[in-house]
Amino acid sequence: MNYGTLYGVSLGPGDPGLITRRAWSLLQKDNVCWTYPVRNNKSNSYALDIALRAGLTLPAEYQSLVFPMTHAPEKLAGYRLRAAETVVEKLRTGRDVLFLVEGDASTYSTFGHLSRTVRALDESIHIETIAGVPAYNAAAAQLQTPLADVDDTIAIIPAGYGLHVIEALLPQFDTLVLLKVKPLLDDILALLEQKGLTQHARFIEKAGAPEQRIIEDITLLNGEKVNYLSLMLIRNPDRQRGELIRGCRKKTDITPMPEENTL
Amino acid sequence: MNYGTLYGVSLGPGDPGLITRRAWSLLQKDNVCWTYPVRNNKSNSYALDIALRAGLTLPAEYQSLVFPMTHAPEKLAGYRLRAAETVVEKLRTGRDVLFLVEGDASTYSTFGHLSRTVRALDESIHIETIAGVPAYNAAAAQLQTPLADVDDTIAIIPAGYGLHVIEALLPQFDTLVLLKVKPLLDDILALLEQKGLTQHARFIEKAGAPEQRIIEDITLLNGEKVNYLSLMLIRNPDRQRGELIRGCRKKTDITPMPEENTL
Repeated sequence: MNYGTLYGVSLGPGDPGLITRRAWSLLQKDNVCWTYPVRNNKSNSYALDIALRAGLTLPAEYQSLVFPMTHAPEKLAGYRLRAAETVVEKLRTGRDVLFLVEGDASTYSTFGHLSRTVRALDESIHIETIAGVPAYNAAAAQLQTPLADVDDTIAIIPAGYGLHVIEALLPQFDTLVLLKVKPLLDDILALLEQKGLTQHARFIEKAGAPEQRIIEDITLLNGEKVNYLSLMLIRNPDRQRGELIRGCRKKTDITPMPEENTL
Repeated sequence: MNYGTLYGVSLGPGDPGLITRRAWSLLQKDNVCWTYPVRNNKSNSYALDIALRAGLTLPAEYQSLVFPMTHAPEKLAGYRLRAAETVVEKLRTGRDVLFLVEGDASTYSTFGHLSRTVRALDESIHIETIAGVPAYNAAAAQLQTPLADVDDTIAIIPAGYGLHVIEALLPQFDTLVLLKVKPLLDDILALLEQKGLTQHARFIEKAGAPEQRIIEDITLLNGEKVNYLSLMLIRNPDRQRGELIRGCRKKTDITPMPEENTL
């Protein structure tokens, strides 16, 4: 009996137009099983919703997989194991299993855990990951602001690491992407004001979804309630740049750098 | 007379399967003009090559735009202006202009310069950017390694900023993406060895292209010649993490952070 293949199918951040051709062709295959993450048995799957909004219909075989919103390692491991066992069972029937992922399957996705756990259960199983468009790339496109110009540096961090971390990274990077800004929003706004970066920051809620909200004047956000799925793109036009080594040089030209920690 | 729209059409890193549905539908429109970047009048366009490998044929109207490999600001500005003037001339005929971009149009792409220059020439022109899959997301998918797990931090920098910068960033980020590693490759290999990260680094040349080369054992690269279009993904499993603020807290809980600079 041949096992099916497990596919991590990235769907992009929400606009069905940002689904790749490869993902699209997998989603139209007959005789496959769709799986998708949900927080609990009663909640909807945002990834599934993207596919349905694209005009696709659920195949005969489908299965939600529960990945709860908890950070308790043992509880998480239990749910991951159950999800992986469900997937392996489906694969054993010879059917391919698609795991639908919003955004990109390699970036802040449950697919990494699922595929590692599936592999741990049976390392002979074939797994393929289809890359997708991350939310912040879609946000930059909509804002018509570069995430990175030539020679730029980018950092992407969950905002929850705190103001000191954000403050330390701002001078080092041309673009700082802050994910999940909700709990610190007012403090981030104050920090950006203090650093003179208010005009260079943009706020995006539910990037790519139909209910997406883009705020170009972030001072409007002071005291506002925002969604959990919200991010900020901050450009720092004043980053101090070190010398950039281009092309091919000899080792002796490369080793001495004038300034430490200056990108 | 209505002007046409300028579209920045991201094609992903090279695999025609990673072209999005929206880009694909624009590429199949009649009566549009394709434009694409070339280094000089004799060179090929990698972006155009992706579209042709996808089975598409050049439309009746097409035009290469020269963006030379120079870092001389005046020379660059002159070429950007000429490219933008060419595009505006085409748009004036009422025809839409597609500018084909490898990877993502907001990330290390000439489209940012082109669109800004076009807007500077005529700010009434409508411009739309179609987001795409960046090369390092495609590389992570192929390697089946996460670019970021939950709560992870990512930095993306041109390697040319030098070893001191790379050394300073390694402990701060879960994933460090180094672009254009060629000129410093041996030094980077030595640094990773010294930091005990050799096993956590992967090398990808021409990500997504048919001639893509992935090296999982980077010690094989010592003294090797590599292509200019090469990157490394480095995971740091030992990053020291600060406390992460989740959900909604009061300001007073957020402000004091125990350690500075520790993500």
